[in-house]
Amino acid sequence: MKQKIGLAHGEGGELTHQLIQDVFVKSFGHEIQTKLDSAILPSLQNNMAVTTDSFVVKPIFFPGGNIGKLAITGTVNDLAVSGAIPRFITAGFILEEGFAVQNLKSIVQSMAEEASQAGVHIIAGDTKVVEKGSVDGIFINTTGIGEMNEKNRPKPEWMKNGDAVIISGTIGDHGISIVSARNELGLMTDVKSDCASLNHLIGELTNEVDGIRIMRDPTRGGLATTLVEICEDFQVTIELEEASIPVRRDVQGACDILGFDPLYIANEGKVVIIVDSNFVEKAIDIMRQNEFGRNTSVIGQVSTKGSGKLLLKTPFGTTRRLQRLSGMLLPRIC
Amino acid sequence: MKQKIGLAHGEGGELTHQLIQDVFVKSFGHEIQTKLDSAILPSLQNNMAVTTDSFVVKPIFFPGGNIGKLAITGTVNDLAVSGAIPRFITAGFILEEGFAVQNLKSIVQSMAEEASQAGVHIIAGDTKVVEKGSVDGIFINTTGIGEMNEKNRPKPEWMKNGDAVIISGTIGDHGISIVSARNELGLMTDVKSDCASLNHLIGELTNEVDGIRIMRDPTRGGLATTLVEICEDFQVTIELEEASIPVRRDVQGACDILGFDPLYIANEGKVVIIVDSNFVEKAIDIMRQNEFGRNTSVIGQVSTKGSGKLLLKTPFGTTRRLQRLSGMLLPRIC
Repeated sequence: MKQKIGLAHGEGGELTHQLIQDVFVKSFGHEIQTKLDSAILPSLQNNMAVTTDSFVVKPIFFPGGNIGKLAITGTVNDLAVSGAIPRFITAGFILEEGFAVQNLKSIVQSMAEEASQAGVHIIAGDTKVVEKGSVDGIFINTTGIGEMNEKNRPKPEWMKNGDAVIISGTIGDHGISIVSARNELGLMTDVKSDCASLNHLIGELTNEVDGIRIMRDPTRGGLATTLVEICEDFQVTIELEEASIPVRRDVQGACDILGFDPLYIANEGKVVIIVDSNFVEKAIDIMRQNEFGRNTSVIGQVSTKGSGKLLLKTPFGTTRRLQRLSGMLLPRIC
Repeated sequence: MKQKIGLAHGEGGELTHQLIQDVFVKSFGHEIQTKLDSAILPSLQNNMAVTTDSFVVKPIFFPGGNIGKLAITGTVNDLAVSGAIPRFITAGFILEEGFAVQNLKSIVQSMAEEASQAGVHIIAGDTKVVEKGSVDGIFINTTGIGEMNEKNRPKPEWMKNGDAVIISGTIGDHGISIVSARNELGLMTDVKSDCASLNHLIGELTNEVDGIRIMRDPTRGGLATTLVEICEDFQVTIELEEASIPVRRDVQGACDILGFDPLYIANEGKVVIIVDSNFVEKAIDIMRQNEFGRNTSVIGQVSTKGSGKLLLKTPFGTTRRLQRLSGMLLPRIC
């Protein structure tokens, strides 16, 4: 008989103890175990970066990853784009009664592998179980703690006319892979999620290149929403060149069929960077040497004409203003 | 019309932006806002304690608190019993489509108030929304970061014969208040949840009293499960005096009706402490001066006869061994 999660697995008694031993300790190692209610760690030398994220992606397994891998990469990337070296991650699981223990094991194993690749330690965890129907399978919350590298810290306040906007590769892959995996809209593609930890790519870049103004991972809301936020927060105008933005043909095709714009589709393994134009060539060289930056492209520039606006220059020579994602596009993409 | 949460509130676009401004920034202040993907904080001087917890309590509002207050107190207490001063908390929300915005505001306001009382800062947040039926209203994950006070750090390795076991007050209040609020078992009581942040009580104690061996908050699994874990982890035997364990009459009455044992019912505002017997009177004096320690009592002692066992001495002169909570008692108690 296949093992299933029961409510008692979440009650803190004997079965919780067994589940922790059997699933979490096996994959995460003894690190996560503690005889106190908290993990005790040495303090960091430098400033600390902290981020938190809940993952509710549907389906939980999709081409290119699963909810566990995504939880690690998402948190690692939030730290990395802030200029921090990811150090520690906590993981909170909410499981539905009846969830297959085998699926939990696969998810936890993916988390362990991705954490190891990214060089972060999973230090604390928690498991709750709710009745069948009270949650859709599994939700994961991860909180990340990173250590700032002050030398490499992005300087958004230095953004100026002519700074280049770079993206590390094609946009929209994650969102389209999820829609395709859901099989709801009759869409079938070979698109895989791009979900990946970008801290090594970002580390290689920031160690070598000065003049990084800001980095962001364009997840929910896509590239356009991320850039609108930068424009508003720092009162700059950004002009994007639509023709320069890398989009896979099958992603563009899927978007055309579904009436989506790839600019608003979530990415989980891309970073958008604004950099002093004097350093842009060096930045691209370095990024393209990393497996997750092969298709790095310059896609626009910062302008001081006007302020706080994201503009898109189309191949037809027209310019339109882009806003934040409005209304509903794709729920439960991460 | 009453405002409801929609799926678009979780998509990272315009409505997410508005929700953050309208609900979270209002209650939490600007601290939580950041123009980067992480909150950047000064590093701690001393070792760091980290804990994470997901909250799925049902119902979300109950006598003595709500899911938001509970999320803060639970995380604060996990840090405090580890010997840390709670500093920072992150909060991840998973909301059901259709959840009343007014309820979210109440919950968030309770979190802000409890955090302020406990002296912790809510530094980062995340909101996801899932379709109606995919989650039961609201789940919250909180991760806490504390700073170790090495001088006051409990020393479990020093536990020895004759050390006293102290509880800060009556047991079982939280669990019984939840069962009662659910109204499922036809039980009606006036019992309020004891949920409270104990960091000030614990700070006052550890600043004044040497010889603290270990502190734990007996939440899921109750006092018995917590003490079984201590016995196993540190290979000591603990003898509890059943007659000395404080239980409210109405809690005991509810347990008698329902066939529960208060020793296995969750507490959310109690701490169990093992202390050198030479310091026990001073410890009790200090704890009773704090509003959350008025009913502090000595309930047992550490013994070197045998090892790894929790024993209960009944008023009839018999002794029985207690195990971890086994099987299901009360799901979704926190």
